Amino acid sequence: MNQRSIGVFDSGVGGLTVLKALMRRLPAESTVYLGDTARVPYGTKSPEVVIRYSLSNARLLMRQQIKLLVVACNTASSVSLPALAKELEVPVLGVIEPGAQAAVQVTAGRVGVIGTLGTVNSGAYQQALAQARGGLEVMARACPLFVPLAEEGWTEGEVVEAVARKYLADFEAFGADTLVLGCTHYPLLKGAIARVVGPQVRLVDSAEATAEAAEGLLRDGGLLACAGAIAEHRYFVTDLPERFAEVGARFLERPIERAELVDL
Amino acid sequence: MNQRSIGVFDSGVGGLTVLKALMRRLPAESTVYLGDTARVPYGTKSPEVVIRYSLSNARLLMRQQIKLLVVACNTASSVSLPALAKELEVPVLGVIEPGAQAAVQVTAGRVGVIGTLGTVNSGAYQQALAQARGGLEVMARACPLFVPLAEEGWTEGEVVEAVARKYLADFEAFGADTLVLGCTHYPLLKGAIARVVGPQVRLVDSAEATAEAAEGLLRDGGLLACAGAIAEHRYFVTDLPERFAEVGARFLERPIERAELVDL
Repeated sequence: MNQRSIGVFDSGVGGLTVLKALMRRLPAESTVYLGDTARVPYGTKSPEVVIRYSLSNARLLMRQQIKLLVVACNTASSVSLPALAKELEVPVLGVIEPGAQAAVQVTAGRVGVIGTLGTVNSGAYQQALAQARGGLEVMARACPLFVPLAEEGWTEGEVVEAVARKYLADFEAFGADTLVLGCTHYPLLKGAIARVVGPQVRLVDSAEATAEAAEGLLRDGGLLACAGAIAEHRYFVTDLPERFAEVGARFLERPIERAELVDL
Repeated sequence: MNQRSIGVFDSGVGGLTVLKALMRRLPAESTVYLGDTARVPYGTKSPEVVIRYSLSNARLLMRQQIKLLVVACNTASSVSLPALAKELEVPVLGVIEPGAQAAVQVTAGRVGVIGTLGTVNSGAYQQALAQARGGLEVMARACPLFVPLAEEGWTEGEVVEAVARKYLADFEAFGADTLVLGCTHYPLLKGAIARVVGPQVRLVDSAEATAEAAEGLLRDGGLLACAGAIAEHRYFVTDLPERFAEVGARFLERPIERAELVDL
């Protein structure tokens, strides 16, 4: 069982920022990643549709004999975890609770959250933050243009800063001291976001926190791979494998040699 | 047969600009519109996936007893028409050939085309323009951020003009005298696009030309509704009917009272 892979899915390439953190923290672990590029994006879709897509993604990964499922997509994490946990016989980990825990460790009390429409409307971060520490002030806002900007590769310059100023102005009035990047695409825009909100605001990216939580889950379950095991990394997509490999390499910061096309 | 509806599909709300033109030109015609909001957008997906989605959309509309299918989506029109024409027993009309015809009527010889990645990569406009008139110079460019900008409602102001300047700069060097808005979302950004390219460039929107072509097809087939018939307009979506009705009203410029949720 402990030689099995960690399964990771996202609506597309964004979850590769989480995979990158997993690979760095757990270099002996094999992984299998599914990017649902035929149905991307999830952030503008209803909870019912996102749950249906999440279940079909998880079933594909279960057929690859995984020992842990990491939902590396904030939108899917915000609505699908109960349905996934009910159906699967392996542990399921989302990115929202680790992100909320990481925010609580650095905030002085006023937390901003940015994400997709689906994530923000679900209230999942607001709830996770309230459970992590009582008395926090939280303000959440959807930033729909950040995902296409990251995918277009326009991560610096006039356009992204103008968009960021427009979305983030209200957090200054709110007095946020911490801003949660509640979408796996947003770390690519970190430079521009940091310049707009200023150095007094701490940016929290849930990728590292999620990798740490994954390590804890595997250790507690006696599921860690043997130290020194040769890790294999496989990639599945539902559309456009060449484009996934090309854009994904920017997110993963290492080449993706091959992504296999599957039909859900 | 002539009392049947015109079926129209798009990946989401964009095709409502075509529906609006159809309603204006053919006020006695009933329509049934399908927005595939669970799988939107099509513009970033492969031809194979777009053809599969187009066929499933068309089958749903055929069950509504339509007499003509209008593919009100440039990406779907650019790759799906042969497969649709082969399967369906009613005439099928896309937006690309009418758009190319409209461009040819106004251009002095240098035509720019903007659209999604899927549309531009298909080469469909380039081919339709070449067939409509020999010797044209054509330059095409994908503008992936225009769709999310239109859906966000950021159709005027600093951000959209900065994006438009970035995408459209090359058309000035090329010397385009005509620019085809090769995506049904783009007419919403017409003001900003016009300011960036300047008054010497004619903008061509295929909605009107498509409505005119639809009228011609119905007349030739003896399929026009009786003058004075009471037209009914129905809407189906695959996700988020309330959001479709709200955003769609901006595209259609009339209220959408009800959209019915269907599962493809």
